[in-house]
Amino acid sequence: MAIETAVMAPADPGHAMRAHLIGRFQALRSRSTALTSPLSAEDMGAQTMEDVSPSKWHLAHTSWFWETFLLEPHLPGYEAFDPRFGYLFNSYYEALGDRQPRAARGHITRPGIAHVMAYRAHVDEAMEHLLESCGEADLERIAALTETGIAHEEQHQELILTDIKHVLSVNPFGEIYSEPASLTVQPGALAGWLEFAGGLDEFGAGDGGFAFDNEGPRHKAWLAPFALSTHCVTNAQYAEFIADGGYDTASLWLSDGWARVQAEGRRCPLYWRGGAREWREFTLHGERELDASAPVSHLDYFEASAFAEWTGYRLPEEREWELAARQFDATSARAMTPDGWLHPASADQANLFGGVWQWTRSAYAPYPGYRAQGGAIGEYNGKFMCGQFVLKGGSALTPPGHVRASYRNFFPPQAQWQMTGLRLAKDLTS
Amino acid sequence: MAIETAVMAPADPGHAMRAHLIGRFQALRSRSTALTSPLSAEDMGAQTMEDVSPSKWHLAHTSWFWETFLLEPHLPGYEAFDPRFGYLFNSYYEALGDRQPRAARGHITRPGIAHVMAYRAHVDEAMEHLLESCGEADLERIAALTETGIAHEEQHQELILTDIKHVLSVNPFGEIYSEPASLTVQPGALAGWLEFAGGLDEFGAGDGGFAFDNEGPRHKAWLAPFALSTHCVTNAQYAEFIADGGYDTASLWLSDGWARVQAEGRRCPLYWRGGAREWREFTLHGERELDASAPVSHLDYFEASAFAEWTGYRLPEEREWELAARQFDATSARAMTPDGWLHPASADQANLFGGVWQWTRSAYAPYPGYRAQGGAIGEYNGKFMCGQFVLKGGSALTPPGHVRASYRNFFPPQAQWQMTGLRLAKDLTS
Amino acid sequence: MAIETAVMAPADPGHAMRAHLIGRFQALRSRSTALTSPLSAEDMGAQTMEDVSPSKWHLAHTSWFWETFLLEPHLPGYEAFDPRFGYLFNSYYEALGDRQPRAARGHITRPGIAHVMAYRAHVDEAMEHLLESCGEADLERIAALTETGIAHEEQHQELILTDIKHVLSVNPFGEIYSEPASLTVQPGALAGWLEFAGGLDEFGAGDGGFAFDNEGPRHKAWLAPFALSTHCVTNAQYAEFIADGGYDTASLWLSDGWARVQAEGRRCPLYWRGGAREWREFTLHGERELDASAPVSHLDYFEASAFAEWTGYRLPEEREWELAARQFDATSARAMTPDGWLHPASADQANLFGGVWQWTRSAYAPYPGYRAQGGAIGEYNGKFMCGQFVLKGGSALTPPGHVRASYRNFFPPQAQWQMTGLRLAKDLTS
Amino acid sequence: MAIETAVMAPADPGHAMRAHLIGRFQALRSRSTALTSPLSAEDMGAQTMEDVSPSKWHLAHTSWFWETFLLEPHLPGYEAFDPRFGYLFNSYYEALGDRQPRAARGHITRPGIAHVMAYRAHVDEAMEHLLESCGEADLERIAALTETGIAHEEQHQELILTDIKHVLSVNPFGEIYSEPASLTVQPGALAGWLEFAGGLDEFGAGDGGFAFDNEGPRHKAWLAPFALSTHCVTNAQYAEFIADGGYDTASLWLSDGWARVQAEGRRCPLYWRGGAREWREFTLHGERELDASAPVSHLDYFEASAFAEWTGYRLPEEREWELAARQFDATSARAMTPDGWLHPASADQANLFGGVWQWTRSAYAPYPGYRAQGGAIGEYNGKFMCGQFVLKGGSALTPPGHVRASYRNFFPPQAQWQMTGLRLAKDLTS
Repeated sequence: MAIETAVMAPADPGHAMRAHLIGRFQALRSRSTALTSPLSAEDMGAQTMEDVSPSKWHLAHTSWFWETFLLEPHLPGYEAFDPRFGYLFNSYYEALGDRQPRAARGHITRPGIAHVMAYRAHVDEAMEHLLESCGEADLERIAALTETGIAHEEQHQELILTDIKHVLSVNPFGEIYSEPASLTVQPGALAGWLEFAGGLDEFGAGDGGFAFDNEGPRHKAWLAPFALSTHCVTNAQYAEFIADGGYDTASLWLSDGWARVQAEGRRCPLYWRGGAREWREFTLHGERELDASAPVSHLDYFEASAFAEWTGYRLPEEREWELAARQFDATSARAMTPDGWLHPASADQANLFGGVWQWTRSAYAPYPGYRAQGGAIGEYNGKFMCGQFVLKGGSALTPPGHVRASYRNFFPPQAQWQMTGLRLAKDLTS
Repeated sequence: MAIETAVMAPADPGHAMRAHLIGRFQALRSRSTALTSPLSAEDMGAQTMEDVSPSKWHLAHTSWFWETFLLEPHLPGYEAFDPRFGYLFNSYYEALGDRQPRAARGHITRPGIAHVMAYRAHVDEAMEHLLESCGEADLERIAALTETGIAHEEQHQELILTDIKHVLSVNPFGEIYSEPASLTVQPGALAGWLEFAGGLDEFGAGDGGFAFDNEGPRHKAWLAPFALSTHCVTNAQYAEFIADGGYDTASLWLSDGWARVQAEGRRCPLYWRGGAREWREFTLHGERELDASAPVSHLDYFEASAFAEWTGYRLPEEREWELAARQFDATSARAMTPDGWLHPASADQANLFGGVWQWTRSAYAPYPGYRAQGGAIGEYNGKFMCGQFVLKGGSALTPPGHVRASYRNFFPPQAQWQMTGLRLAKDLTS
Repeated sequence: MAIETAVMAPADPGHAMRAHLIGRFQALRSRSTALTSPLSAEDMGAQTMEDVSPSKWHLAHTSWFWETFLLEPHLPGYEAFDPRFGYLFNSYYEALGDRQPRAARGHITRPGIAHVMAYRAHVDEAMEHLLESCGEADLERIAALTETGIAHEEQHQELILTDIKHVLSVNPFGEIYSEPASLTVQPGALAGWLEFAGGLDEFGAGDGGFAFDNEGPRHKAWLAPFALSTHCVTNAQYAEFIADGGYDTASLWLSDGWARVQAEGRRCPLYWRGGAREWREFTLHGERELDASAPVSHLDYFEASAFAEWTGYRLPEEREWELAARQFDATSARAMTPDGWLHPASADQANLFGGVWQWTRSAYAPYPGYRAQGGAIGEYNGKFMCGQFVLKGGSALTPPGHVRASYRNFFPPQAQWQMTGLRLAKDLTS
Repeated sequence: MAIETAVMAPADPGHAMRAHLIGRFQALRSRSTALTSPLSAEDMGAQTMEDVSPSKWHLAHTSWFWETFLLEPHLPGYEAFDPRFGYLFNSYYEALGDRQPRAARGHITRPGIAHVMAYRAHVDEAMEHLLESCGEADLERIAALTETGIAHEEQHQELILTDIKHVLSVNPFGEIYSEPASLTVQPGALAGWLEFAGGLDEFGAGDGGFAFDNEGPRHKAWLAPFALSTHCVTNAQYAEFIADGGYDTASLWLSDGWARVQAEGRRCPLYWRGGAREWREFTLHGERELDASAPVSHLDYFEASAFAEWTGYRLPEEREWELAARQFDATSARAMTPDGWLHPASADQANLFGGVWQWTRSAYAPYPGYRAQGGAIGEYNGKFMCGQFVLKGGSALTPPGHVRASYRNFFPPQAQWQMTGLRLAKDLTS
């Protein structure tokens, strides 16, 4: 037996890698569908604002991604489940032709959810076949694409939760996504400052492990001395900002933010309800009392910026955050588990990565030396480098293993429906 | 026993009326749900434009109407199925409080369809109980309200089909609502003119049978001599108008209509597809070849008016149509049957009432002496008397027994999604 | 002498008519420019909402009308002042080609006002030449077109005042158009009802004098017995409606009107200011106290309709108003004089025609037998017969001699910037 | 005499500074009004899109700035010309109260231009008095504020030209602002690359001369090796981009830019006309042939970015541009002279600063250590640090002496009406 193994190993050096990829792929795909188990067909079809996509669409779009970027180019003889799905489930790839208008994703009642599940099964089977059978020569390329596909579907897992939260929230009768598992609350350490001397350093993703193209290239930059707060801003602190007239004080706001506050009459974060006497918050576990010491969430950039202005501090630069993150373990940050606690908690304060996505004041822009890849896959990140801000960290809705120091999440400044908050920064004299 | 029966009969003179009402009520309610049998939960929840309401909403709203106007005021001890449904399923009754915004009816994923069916069953049982048990003194009033409720739900039966047609049409893959029963096509008589001398006459609903309040009071009016075409305008005739540059000729159009043609780039009726070489039409039975001799449908008022201008004739006045209708039997017009042919057909040309709702050039306005009723029920018709036009007749989607000569359907001039066409009129010299 | 006269008369039978037309033409044109004498070049160029046209545009457009419909077809050798003006100063005639977008009339800074005055002088001279020199055979046709041109420019005289009122009103510092001449206020008779038996009658313009095409043909119609109020609704009465919560009571309003009240937060007529304690009103003579017994003005149709509903009466039909007008002398109604009192006054209550344009509940529609004329001139009225309501009477801004019983003014229901009010009507039992 | 001088000098050490400031102030103010000398009152009142302000407004707003930030706080007994002007002519300072809505600046017909000129004279006289009479102790502060006021009014001088260009351009008959002085065209040097080694360096304004707060503080940053093109992109090069299908190739565009191209149908820079066969360009000297070797202008950021993508190069970082600028003399760049050539020319290619404002890919953000000042003046720059991009250089419309290496102009990515173009950059390997 030992001899046989020895003989076989050289014949199939990629065996372990194949098994590893298949295992990760299967776990990923199961988690996506598990996320929708509390939902009805109607819940999964609704689009309650343009930013929101139906859960059904996420389940189908992620399958289309595998089909388009892995199966069609690399699995000989693969037949698309339904060639018309390219039109319906392409998100934004201009190179791949016309597609269903984003604002009309909720109009697609057919294929229904059962049909979409059959689509997923078809893709799963083919992907497992591809990973088992592809030639050694192709394995490295296919493994890299598989990593991209996993990271992509993980992003959509977070979006499934983010979006269904909005859908449930507009149903007027206090719906819940799940009853939470009990959470042993460990109060975070006292808030304070993490201080850094700055100087010349290197930033961005290097060669160690998967990263999106926008996380590199690795490059030098100079930072002045700075400090970051140990904790994210809490619900209690944000309520104090409101009570102090934060939403009535023009001088705290960026000009565009103030215009928005005036036009939309905003008075609190997206999911807060009930007014100053008794703030409550809509969560995936229903409407609940505010947890005073948990990170505030569902702020847009303008709110985060106005809050920072109110304190006299500021938002961090993205490289400041990345530097600080070196002393934390990303993998130990609490992550989304469908049956767990899907909301920021006090305990998340222990880890820089935890609880909420954290707005930085860095506009989302290319790193020095960045070039987008060619072809449709090149549309993944580069074409959005205008008018958005970088967020660092991760949230209670982020899949396990999806966070890292070089990760650059990005959203437009008016986006409130993501699980977004902030951490303060300040300049130190050198 | 026989004697007792004889004695009892006078004690319950309303027995036959009760049985009759219950029978009609049950048939009505069954037909509403039967209309949704080809639909998935997702189909029934979608709202693909603001005018369209989800099928689920129609099923619930009609139940809310019975609950609000019959059960709560008249059935002692009645408990609303869910008091929060008033918010969700009130359509437009200001007197009954706030309600779900019209454009967001498609956001309601909960209650789901199973829950709505339970709501219907609850209301059905209570209504049957009310009709069996109400006091003799109340019976006449309750019977009159029941007639209103039946007419109301029949309107929504037509809307269920009208609206689901739009929902299916925006699904890009040629969906169908039903396979049609075979239709023995009997070509209509040759088109010609029905001539009338006009003069002083009486119009509007009198005492004979149920009518909405806007159909009365009966009143005198003078008509000049006129003629109506025996047939509605056909698909072939409308295709000729298009081929002759109808959509490019400003002088044929009302000013608002021309602005709309320019702004939206309209080139054909709502559900026509494929262009002049090979016009096809989306129907509830899928996309099909145009039937040249069937009435053209899904025109808005502007299109109907421009077509009439092109011919040198004009649209009828509503009272001209009503006068002409006296020589036709409304009950013999072909009506909606869920498993039948749900589209205008050549054979519908035999009856003035048939095939399509027919635009008149009469603005929807109060008849002389009209006053809206007090209370919420008074909001039924009167408050819409501005900016809309009257349509006469009925369509292949109209429930059996729902058409009559005094009926005044009304829609804004830009509405295309109803099954609407036209019949020509001309002045005769006296 | 007698002989010469006898000889000359046949040689120039149209002499008196020519002189009469020239005199009226000159008076008309002078009045138009006199209306702008209080205005600066800047006042005359501004467009403060889409409905408003700059005074400069009105002065130029009316000249273009003479040029297009009289001079170019009928004066041999006439050369347009500037052929490019057709683009700028055509209002809405599709048959005459592209034109400056309506919303951008205020963008035209060149030609400036001096240039436009030169345009007017050029047209004046040519028109006088035409009226003096045209052949006898053409005189009747030219005289008829001249009547149309005069009526058209009179409409724009009213619009010059109506529009400049809006322009001045948005300047924040209480501008005035003119100091008013003193007005001897004669209180009107006590308000009461004018009663009419109705029956079969004839309506619309016949052969006696100039009328627009939409005022005919003369036709029979039947009216039920009715009464009109002797007075228009006054400022005091409308203030009472507001104080009684008129703008908060949904049941009084048409559905579209209520939506507008909600969306725009309307609480009073367009030019009222200051709130219930001290209503004031912006007028062409500046901001002033409300005159309690003067007709309320600058209501849209929805406000007029809601007010009528509040009183329990209703708006008149247009033919009811025309019938009642037979007992009043249109020419004795007070008319616009640039140096007079340019606002409704109590004294206007003495004449059915006086003070304000009065909303009727009649949709603007073709009279029986109406056909629009061919050619560009046929666009004058017919293509607007959709979505508007007829107004009868005339206002303090209407030129002298411009009102008559058959006149049909028309505006969309949301128009507030015209000098519009209402008179009540009620049904009488026959 | 020598003694007297010696005695006097200490008594008025600020005399020369006062005279210098007064001289500069007077020259500045004269130039502002001289810029409007070719314009009529109507030209100066019009607002042809929301971004554009009327010339009259610029003349008044700059006077209000002096009144608000210099005269009222520092000249004892100063009386505002008209206290109501604060409402009309405040641009965006929230701390100073409500103001005329930006989109309605063109509605202000009163005060007229003569009145605004009187306002300017009033302010001029008071400012001269202040600069002559203020105490020695205040002189430094007042001198600093005067520098800010001069820089501010210079910005508005450029806007007067930029905005009137748009006003004239929408007048359909080819208006001109001025006949240009003759320009001796000196063809620029051949295009090539300026190479830089990068490394750690200092950036931003230090202590040498006036700068806006957003140009500092001076700070360290690291640059990788790079090159900038010696010339701006020319009209000929941009025409080639168009001819190569630049506006049809999604892959060249940022996502927001592509959406805009699709929605607005853009096919060329803002003022280009006539199509590919014969491109012409609207300038302040009227419509003219394109100068092939002059810098292309009136591009928005999306167009600049797409062009750079098409070439395979990229836009510069703002600090790269600042570093390169050290070897050029800002004061020798050609500047706006009202009677000169007010358009980019080939000869402008000789100086990095010249011809057009040059888009960088740096989002407009605070420099490390930046804090906005307190009070209304603190609204000058900081509150706009979101969603805009930095531009470097200067244009043919920029006043003399207004450009410097540290200057950070900023506009949103969709702004086309500024005189904006681009210079290419590329990475060098280190």
